[in-house]
Amino acid sequence: MHGKVPQSCTSIVYNARHMSAPTYIINGSFNHHITPLDRGFSYGDGVFRTMKMRGGLPLNWPLHYQKLVADCAAIGIVCPSAELLMSDFEQLVTLQDTDTQAENVAKIIITRGEGERGYQPPAVTSPTRVVIKSSMPQYLAAYDDTGVTLTLCQTRLSPQGKLAGVKHLNRLENVLARMEWRDETIFDGLLLDQQNNVIECTMSNVFIRINNTLFTPDLSQCGVAGVTRQRVLSVAHVLNLKIEITSFSLDDFTKADEVMICNSLFGCYQVTRFLNQTWPIQHMAKSFKQLLAQQSVMA
Amino acid sequence: MHGKVPQSCTSIVYNARHMSAPTYIINGSFNHHITPLDRGFSYGDGVFRTMKMRGGLPLNWPLHYQKLVADCAAIGIVCPSAELLMSDFEQLVTLQDTDTQAENVAKIIITRGEGERGYQPPAVTSPTRVVIKSSMPQYLAAYDDTGVTLTLCQTRLSPQGKLAGVKHLNRLENVLARMEWRDETIFDGLLLDQQNNVIECTMSNVFIRINNTLFTPDLSQCGVAGVTRQRVLSVAHVLNLKIEITSFSLDDFTKADEVMICNSLFGCYQVTRFLNQTWPIQHMAKSFKQLLAQQSVMA
Repeated sequence: MHGKVPQSCTSIVYNARHMSAPTYIINGSFNHHITPLDRGFSYGDGVFRTMKMRGGLPLNWPLHYQKLVADCAAIGIVCPSAELLMSDFEQLVTLQDTDTQAENVAKIIITRGEGERGYQPPAVTSPTRVVIKSSMPQYLAAYDDTGVTLTLCQTRLSPQGKLAGVKHLNRLENVLARMEWRDETIFDGLLLDQQNNVIECTMSNVFIRINNTLFTPDLSQCGVAGVTRQRVLSVAHVLNLKIEITSFSLDDFTKADEVMICNSLFGCYQVTRFLNQTWPIQHMAKSFKQLLAQQSVMA
Repeated sequence: MHGKVPQSCTSIVYNARHMSAPTYIINGSFNHHITPLDRGFSYGDGVFRTMKMRGGLPLNWPLHYQKLVADCAAIGIVCPSAELLMSDFEQLVTLQDTDTQAENVAKIIITRGEGERGYQPPAVTSPTRVVIKSSMPQYLAAYDDTGVTLTLCQTRLSPQGKLAGVKHLNRLENVLARMEWRDETIFDGLLLDQQNNVIECTMSNVFIRINNTLFTPDLSQCGVAGVTRQRVLSVAHVLNLKIEITSFSLDDFTKADEVMICNSLFGCYQVTRFLNQTWPIQHMAKSFKQLLAQQSVMA
């Protein structure tokens, strides 16, 4: 269960409290490297997942693995088996991580593997499999009570039906959007598409409540359809909410009774401020967060 | 001038005639590696250039370096100095490469460097610099006389003004488009945008001639504005051609008097077949190719 961890596998200096350098394993080995011929590096030709680990195990693994397989299939990569990935997790986990309260972040990257120069994949490819374990971000506990602040990104998401919903490695739009602010009081940035529809935030999915209906954007042209979004949709009935997956405008967003964002690391947060607008503190996000926590599945 | 070359820096097997495995240098060293924390690998957060080397020197280096600097700037990366890159070339070149007839392909990849998890770049980044030397593709000499065949890709390019024209590492659209055919008689695939405008091919830029005007697509919303496209535009007057950079349709394309594609490796080829349509063999592409060859600048 407790793998050996390399002394140093990154040149980044980690100075934050309780932060340790990420550790990773490539194709099942601590000794493997990524070469510049890897198509993940050359073209962003791959997909990834980010999830929470608790007690050394990935939370809600069945849904994450299902999504990983679907995303690989969307770009024609055969996803490595769940058994291989689980053995990677086991090698990465230290004794400290297995404490039942210990939380980490696991990131899985699957690329099409190495290839010669040129966009055409080799006739036979061998996917590259990377699992990275890193420290949980220090989310302020207060966010559950105070809600979070969003800004509006100027970067617009471009439509691409073949890639929409997929968490692939072509993430320059998210990078450019995230580079738009450095104000640490802003938690995330809202992203619109080129028709001014609300789509998502840079690192989270978006929900708005109008009366007793929960709306979340249609992601058939852009955006990432996250696992926590899927889980929220599947439990909304418990909170007596109807769900509607549809396009909506910034105007709909600002007039909503309640706004919520979600991802696999922080769960759900209410949005209480967007630019100059504020919403009173309500209970939906907290209720969803509790519901999802109750229904979390250990691997 | 002649650097040491590692014995084996890739697991790909090279069996084609005269093909040898690519060699590469990372941040000036044969001993460095790409880590999975490199933002080029995580997010495609970088840019690249492909160019021909002759006698161990990159052809038309001033234009390529200028474009590399501009592309880096477009996504907020400070491009490494030309001196550093030239020293990388020198290390990669072998005695054999310095034969005045010897040709190779050089690819430069610049990423934003390593980062912690999350889209926000670190406050201080140190770009990753990779130079890869590989064998020239075996273009059929006959293509200069017979022209080449294009297919039409179903994958459409999505509009993104912030990234248009830039040769960044988010190239999944090109990969998906290139996966659409395996017929080796098809040289490249034509890509349209979502409004049915002709934009480019998967690995080349496109020109059409109507009477004595040379049209090439406007790349302000998508596509890559290549160096050879720029060179063609700058010498078109020598062939008594007016130039027009504008949107045009597939219908304009099929009705053109002459169609030409270009990139930095093969120069210019006439397109003589597109799906079921054929064009008679003409001279423009060959004339451009000769003109560009005459005006090539050694580094």
